[in-house]
Amino acid sequence: MNKVQVNTQSHTYEVYLDKALRFRVGDLLSQCLKEKPSSVFVITDSTVAPLYLQDVLSSLPDDLSVSSAIIPSGEQSKSFKEYENLLSQALKNGLDRKSVIIALGGGVVGDIAGFVAASYMRGIRFIQMPTTLLAHDSSVGGKVAINHELGKNMVGAFHQPEAVFYDTDVLFSLPQKEWRAGFAEVLKHGLILDKSFYEWLQKNVTDFLSIDNELVSSLLARSIAIKAEVVSQDEREQGIRAYLNLGHTLGHAIEAVSGYGKITHGEAVVIGIVFAMKLSERLYKIDLDIPAFKAWVESFGYETVIPKDLDHEKLLEAMKKDKKTEAGIIRMVLLKKLGEACVEKVETDVILSLLKES
Amino acid sequence: MNKVQVNTQSHTYEVYLDKALRFRVGDLLSQCLKEKPSSVFVITDSTVAPLYLQDVLSSLPDDLSVSSAIIPSGEQSKSFKEYENLLSQALKNGLDRKSVIIALGGGVVGDIAGFVAASYMRGIRFIQMPTTLLAHDSSVGGKVAINHELGKNMVGAFHQPEAVFYDTDVLFSLPQKEWRAGFAEVLKHGLILDKSFYEWLQKNVTDFLSIDNELVSSLLARSIAIKAEVVSQDEREQGIRAYLNLGHTLGHAIEAVSGYGKITHGEAVVIGIVFAMKLSERLYKIDLDIPAFKAWVESFGYETVIPKDLDHEKLLEAMKKDKKTEAGIIRMVLLKKLGEACVEKVETDVILSLLKES
Repeated sequence: MNKVQVNTQSHTYEVYLDKALRFRVGDLLSQCLKEKPSSVFVITDSTVAPLYLQDVLSSLPDDLSVSSAIIPSGEQSKSFKEYENLLSQALKNGLDRKSVIIALGGGVVGDIAGFVAASYMRGIRFIQMPTTLLAHDSSVGGKVAINHELGKNMVGAFHQPEAVFYDTDVLFSLPQKEWRAGFAEVLKHGLILDKSFYEWLQKNVTDFLSIDNELVSSLLARSIAIKAEVVSQDEREQGIRAYLNLGHTLGHAIEAVSGYGKITHGEAVVIGIVFAMKLSERLYKIDLDIPAFKAWVESFGYETVIPKDLDHEKLLEAMKKDKKTEAGIIRMVLLKKLGEACVEKVETDVILSLLKES
Repeated sequence: MNKVQVNTQSHTYEVYLDKALRFRVGDLLSQCLKEKPSSVFVITDSTVAPLYLQDVLSSLPDDLSVSSAIIPSGEQSKSFKEYENLLSQALKNGLDRKSVIIALGGGVVGDIAGFVAASYMRGIRFIQMPTTLLAHDSSVGGKVAINHELGKNMVGAFHQPEAVFYDTDVLFSLPQKEWRAGFAEVLKHGLILDKSFYEWLQKNVTDFLSIDNELVSSLLARSIAIKAEVVSQDEREQGIRAYLNLGHTLGHAIEAVSGYGKITHGEAVVIGIVFAMKLSERLYKIDLDIPAFKAWVESFGYETVIPKDLDHEKLLEAMKKDKKTEAGIIRMVLLKKLGEACVEKVETDVILSLLKES
């Protein structure tokens, strides 16, 4: 069993990484919860439910009151309607302040189930059980949210989980597209804070199909440790936590303008990273070796240019809705060099002209 | 200007009490906010807007971006629909993370505007401007929420305001019913924690019509100071903060079963307090002089018995939805003596038989 500790102001918790964790949820709960849950409510989605829900439910003790809910899989479920629906089910199932919610799924499930936990009776405990590579990132750090038609993750909270249970088995049934979705955040962690990790990735990860359990465990533990370090320094995103947003200002805009779910978050973020690298080279007169980065990520099937059918003005408007924007001025995460990020105010016309070139 | 300081783990803030504060909001904002707001969004209701909204807007500096929203007055507005609607307006008005929401109104406005502030972009700053006597209570302590048809305040957060601006002028235009609604929480503060304040109230407050500005200021400052003390000791309601719930387990149930808005919160709480006092006398073999309490509050027009048309089984079911309930067992705030509260698990049949007697 690998463990990574996450320290935040509100509390400290562990990320447990191992094979077959889904069969040991009951034991893990009693290990990591100070106070016994009065009941457990498992929230999952229609893709994950047929694969793993029964394993999790069967692993819970017989004398525990357990209920579950299944949301449709996909980003569309991070809606007000689904949020209200889950809260209604929580109430009908009799959840109280000592109950625990388990978010079993990818980032969508973690985000919405986490926001349900954050706001149900003003906040109850929850556990993240990521089932995708991408969710290694969102499951650590306590950012939970739903979407609004005017912007992604616009409504939410900071609510740390009690623990993260990560069953690495489940990753090997994921399609290539899902690996791309998640690996974008892994490489991002290297780019913003750890050049040696970035170089280790470029050397060791050249093909998703050849990744084995040992490699994915090292990769996840290292990526989560970087995320955990950032979160511990800046739980509420006042400072360096914003670095995690590298590639996200444009990435979110691409998702919003093309319609959520059309392009995966990770794929959009990689396009956003290339954009941020170009802007960094231009503003700081540096060389980030973008051709090498593009060649490497293209070998995994990532796109590196903005889809041709997206309107530049619309992208710009969507970028202005970014949460880092202050008084109408876009603030982007850029790179001073590989492994060193910063946040910079960028003029609208600079962005627009680079959008037109890209 | 009277000031009461509220200390919480998250931060310290001031309650400003004075005449004509609504004309000085701009100045007060620059006094109490460390960082200048990028914009201000005033949320108020259809009763308050025609009376005071313009005063507040006019008091804000011309170079500040200001917008406002008016919700229908009444408890019905603490709904998912209104919540989503306000978030949409916040987005359309371009609020960002440095924006400030002003909640101008009674408890309903404070609760929903506070939850909008707590969840918009995962939390932005807000200011409480109470316009009722009742809201002196809810505006301090950071509890914000909306209702669910299965229970009041079931969805919300703990989100402390940056400050409370309390214009005492506005209280004198309130009808008697509103005074009753608010005074219930004032006398509750005495009952649970400060016998001398309770006795001072019984002696000095015998008629709402004869209350002058001086008396209401003393009364509010003292009541708020008790609330602030409780909150500072227990921000997230893990312990003694639950005492503030005296009368609320049955009070909320009466509101829910009779339909929100039919009977005011404060009126329902007084009936709940009488019920809790009876239960306390029975369980602890003490004498709380309930006849004196009843005679005093009835002189203000409070009811002290449960409305005849409410079904006891339904009341019991609603009481079980209380947030203090654990594993199906109702926990109520009771009095060991005047000025000393406690939380006690109470068997269902004990509650039901007392409901039938009441």
